[in-house]
Amino acid sequence: MLVNLLLLLESMSSTGDSNSAEFWTKVRILFKPSPAVVHFILTNFHWFWGLVNNSLLQDIFMRFVLTVRINLVPDIPTYNTKYGYLNWESYYNISYYTRLLPPVPEDCPLPMGTKGKAVLPDPDVLLEKFFKRRVFKPDPQGTNLMFAFMAQHFTHQFFKTRPGVGGGFTKALGHGLINGEMYPPTVSNVPVDMRYPPTIPPEHRLAIGNELFGLVPGLSMYATIWLREHNRLCDILKEEHPTWDDEQLFQTARLIVIGETIKIIIEEYVQHLSGYLFKLKFDPSLLFKEQFHYSNRIAVEFVHLYHWHSLMPDSFLINGDDVPYSQFLHNNSLLIHYGVEKLVDSFSRQPAGQIGGGQNFNEHILGVIKSLFRESRADRLRPFNEYRKKFDLKPYSSFSELTDNVEIARDLEELYGDIDALEFYPGLILEKTHSNRIFGESMVEMGSPFSLKGLFGNPICSPEYWKPSTFGGETGFNIVKTATLRKLVCLNTKWCPYVSFNVPRDEDEPKPKNEL
Amino acid sequence: MLVNLLLLLESMSSTGDSNSAEFWTKVRILFKPSPAVVHFILTNFHWFWGLVNNSLLQDIFMRFVLTVRINLVPDIPTYNTKYGYLNWESYYNISYYTRLLPPVPEDCPLPMGTKGKAVLPDPDVLLEKFFKRRVFKPDPQGTNLMFAFMAQHFTHQFFKTRPGVGGGFTKALGHGLINGEMYPPTVSNVPVDMRYPPTIPPEHRLAIGNELFGLVPGLSMYATIWLREHNRLCDILKEEHPTWDDEQLFQTARLIVIGETIKIIIEEYVQHLSGYLFKLKFDPSLLFKEQFHYSNRIAVEFVHLYHWHSLMPDSFLINGDDVPYSQFLHNNSLLIHYGVEKLVDSFSRQPAGQIGGGQNFNEHILGVIKSLFRESRADRLRPFNEYRKKFDLKPYSSFSELTDNVEIARDLEELYGDIDALEFYPGLILEKTHSNRIFGESMVEMGSPFSLKGLFGNPICSPEYWKPSTFGGETGFNIVKTATLRKLVCLNTKWCPYVSFNVPRDEDEPKPKNEL
Repeated sequence: MLVNLLLLLESMSSTGDSNSAEFWTKVRILFKPSPAVVHFILTNFHWFWGLVNNSLLQDIFMRFVLTVRINLVPDIPTYNTKYGYLNWESYYNISYYTRLLPPVPEDCPLPMGTKGKAVLPDPDVLLEKFFKRRVFKPDPQGTNLMFAFMAQHFTHQFFKTRPGVGGGFTKALGHGLINGEMYPPTVSNVPVDMRYPPTIPPEHRLAIGNELFGLVPGLSMYATIWLREHNRLCDILKEEHPTWDDEQLFQTARLIVIGETIKIIIEEYVQHLSGYLFKLKFDPSLLFKEQFHYSNRIAVEFVHLYHWHSLMPDSFLINGDDVPYSQFLHNNSLLIHYGVEKLVDSFSRQPAGQIGGGQNFNEHILGVIKSLFRESRADRLRPFNEYRKKFDLKPYSSFSELTDNVEIARDLEELYGDIDALEFYPGLILEKTHSNRIFGESMVEMGSPFSLKGLFGNPICSPEYWKPSTFGGETGFNIVKTATLRKLVCLNTKWCPYVSFNVPRDEDEPKPKNEL
Repeated sequence: MLVNLLLLLESMSSTGDSNSAEFWTKVRILFKPSPAVVHFILTNFHWFWGLVNNSLLQDIFMRFVLTVRINLVPDIPTYNTKYGYLNWESYYNISYYTRLLPPVPEDCPLPMGTKGKAVLPDPDVLLEKFFKRRVFKPDPQGTNLMFAFMAQHFTHQFFKTRPGVGGGFTKALGHGLINGEMYPPTVSNVPVDMRYPPTIPPEHRLAIGNELFGLVPGLSMYATIWLREHNRLCDILKEEHPTWDDEQLFQTARLIVIGETIKIIIEEYVQHLSGYLFKLKFDPSLLFKEQFHYSNRIAVEFVHLYHWHSLMPDSFLINGDDVPYSQFLHNNSLLIHYGVEKLVDSFSRQPAGQIGGGQNFNEHILGVIKSLFRESRADRLRPFNEYRKKFDLKPYSSFSELTDNVEIARDLEELYGDIDALEFYPGLILEKTHSNRIFGESMVEMGSPFSLKGLFGNPICSPEYWKPSTFGGETGFNIVKTATLRKLVCLNTKWCPYVSFNVPRDEDEPKPKNEL
């Protein structure tokens, strides 16, 4: 197996001195399998992964995956949208997103540098040709809306682009997960600034820790589930620590919630997304002996990459009712009307759209992508192929290598003129997908490093924090270490709906609550 | 040599597996020399250190010093003044100082925990008995006012306690060095908020990047020198990069200034303070293979520890004039009247007070120490002996073990009742000093880890930043790598004064400018 050989070489190189390390690095590069080969291996050979997943090899593979992925993003913020050179501002001023590659220099002759056309394509033309959905294409991996709203709820805690100042600034100064502060009474009870259109009555304006989370009932549903979980944890902690004050109960439950989130994201959400037969493992101690920085700074490229709005369907099927966008947006009365159980069940059964491949964005969502083009151009984001190189991927030599769709390749050629002038986001979305997968190679190879760095770079994963006392003792620590999406929902609902990041397969029908 | 043995064991343990590492750790602890023995070795055996300092052993020793010291402070912020348990606020809310030990719990029976008196001593009594200067005691290591003002100028960039909210908050949200943004016209020319008493005319109110740096001419002198250096560097960079705009010149010069500062602080300031015969070395690459986090959070204990106000003399001898405090404070006209050269020369020749040993604080400065007691009690700082343990030092068993001064030991015993109830700051200051040294064991053993973590944790020391391009090319990089206090002054003055962190010894008389 190539991966085995790779691991063997890796372990050999890590014990040698620096000269022999250099030699082994060369050998490794020589033998390094392409991402496509690695992907093939990781998604095939059931028997082999069955052995790995149930042995110590799982830890070795997981550590390998983590270190290889995470080394692709810098530990220290480097550039940002204002500064194309290293400087103190980009480190110190945390209101900037960082960025992996500096902007296209201002004195370049062409908008994308030295190649392509003198004027970039009209965003409306791009939306019409490449993004607008013709017919709903479900994700072949079986991703559902429960996944889609998890993605939206989770990522909008650290993607909080400031409006009105270009795309380079964030309102989320922690650059990480700040889950757990949610409390959803309505704004008529508490003075919280929430973004709702004026047509929504105050008693339906839920007050949540993120001012945008009244946008769709999928978000307020997750906010409600996490709130209930947080309060459930507080009760458990109160039982174990009767002398603790409310603040300590709140703060400790908050750390458990962060831990549960990371556990579920890695072992269910990322696991689902990857399609790997290798079972991913959330165990922060895997990195305790590695050179790893417990810190994170959100990159503007990660924000752009995560525009997965093609997940959204054309309407929402809730408990047999077909709800159009006009009745779904900002409508928290759906949550109150159907209840968490029926929303979870419905969202878990409804297929989400395929992210990659193009022509799969519902028209209600195209405006977000149009804004993204405005931002990426204001930020002078470098061409897609530059990012391919940055992530150790071979740059594409033509549009027809990028995509098998002849029409898309031809239109891209016409509009951009040169594959080296293709913009970042269309490259990610229009790249041919892996066979029967949700997106293509670049989304995986660029998204994973950002994602894993952010998840394992959380302070709770550090040796200082990752111990029982941080979570109120063994009980809390075990809650983190055994968290699942199913428990999260079913320990906080009256009955246990079908809950998953996959649409149901035969074996997935709901189990009684006592089998949790 | 014990230190040799230690290094040998260290190098052996670092190549073994985790079981043998544990074994070697035990062996190391068994043979670990006390800080007193290490101090003795480091300050004696000229012949040995002569060999070390001129060989590869210097790197090995320096790496050893760094890793041993830095491992004593956590990489991730843990507690703070509000929170005695790990929680998200203390990580995420950077307006807090962090702290190494949590506060004395609120439900403890006594102010210092379980030992000592029911009421802590009156701060005025403490000031009168232990802090107020009887007669000026010069530092036996020859520290001068040039050092004292460097300390003040340097540390007040990251010690910026917020007034009026207890001692636990900082205004310096970067928790590190932000040198280089200084520009001293007067406030009558630029709208900068500076703290001057109303008696100072606008044309003498220099506008500097830190609102408190108009306090003494020693600070405005350093601000002026660094400003000139910054502008000198901009000129050099402009020559090398004619196309750069002012912003890039400014930002790049700023990084060079930060590098110069760290170089001078480690190789001259800390070197002087240590009294070691071992030559300290600023080479960030020494840590590139270590588990080291390029980040820093200022601890409230570090702020308290660094109250070195006993350095201040009873009056200032400038160019033969004896200037009392009343004419020195807030009086920038001295800087303009004498000029940088004469101030540097005078400050470099005038002895500073010994920091440790007690009874050496000029009465003009006692108010600062009184405020410190107010803060440390509001912050519920743990007893001195608790910090001794935290830094792997044996707790003192009696006041007479703490100090050889019989009267001080007796009075402390009477006021505190128990050595385990002695407060942090008086412990640091009243501890017996090393023979002929500026302070005692605890100040060294507790101060160094904070200091080295802050200096080497600066982003410019990271592999991402520590390369020529960060500093505008080889020229800038070499300026950082060869910076000295003498060059800093003499490349920015009309003539080269006597400049040092030591009062003159015979061999220290000024050299002509062309010998720089």
